[in-house]
Amino acid sequence: MTFLSSIFKRRSSAPVARDRLQILLAHERIAVGDGRDDLLAKLHREIMEVIKRHVAVDQDKVQIKMDRGAQCSVLEIDVEVPGLTDRAENAKKED
Amino acid sequence: MTFLSSIFKRRSSAPVARDRLQILLAHERIAVGDGRDDLLAKLHREIMEVIKRHVAVDQDKVQIKMDRGAQCSVLEIDVEVPGLTDRAENAKKED
Repeated sequence: MTFLSSIFKRRSSAPVARDRLQILLAHERIAVGDGRDDLLAKLHREIMEVIKRHVAVDQDKVQIKMDRGAQCSVLEIDVEVPGLTDRAENAKKED
Repeated sequence: MTFLSSIFKRRSSAPVARDRLQILLAHERIAVGDGRDDLLAKLHREIMEVIKRHVAVDQDKVQIKMDRGAQCSVLEIDVEVPGLTDRAENAKKED
């Protein structure tokens, strides 16, 4: 288990009320940002589309935090997914 | 800045030799995994396709770690992207 995974898992040891999906994107750059730091914004839009193809996303239950630094930008997406358990059940029946 | 972002940024305070993209996906579930934990595998494939649309990915420079737990699974994707700086330059010229 990597350092970051262990952080995630320790944070999530408390019982969860809802299924949750958390995505963290970090972009470390050699050159200080000058137009190259929009990569996370592009990835964010398309990654949300990927997620919506697999889970029922309630837009009110999506939290997005972007932290832009000179050489490291971090984007955190937190999606509460109440329907995940049911949706997975239905998908299994259809298989 | 969130707790996780700060962890990421502290880890990346050392100068980077290459642009790097790190993605961390965590899926916390109410019910203990029984077929519902393949969500990360699905997301992983499609998220890699999204990344490849925006950066030149050298498959040898992609590290993937999956850590499956009963209630929390974590997927970590680490992409070294040497071409990112050049690719971004070319993309800017085409705009």
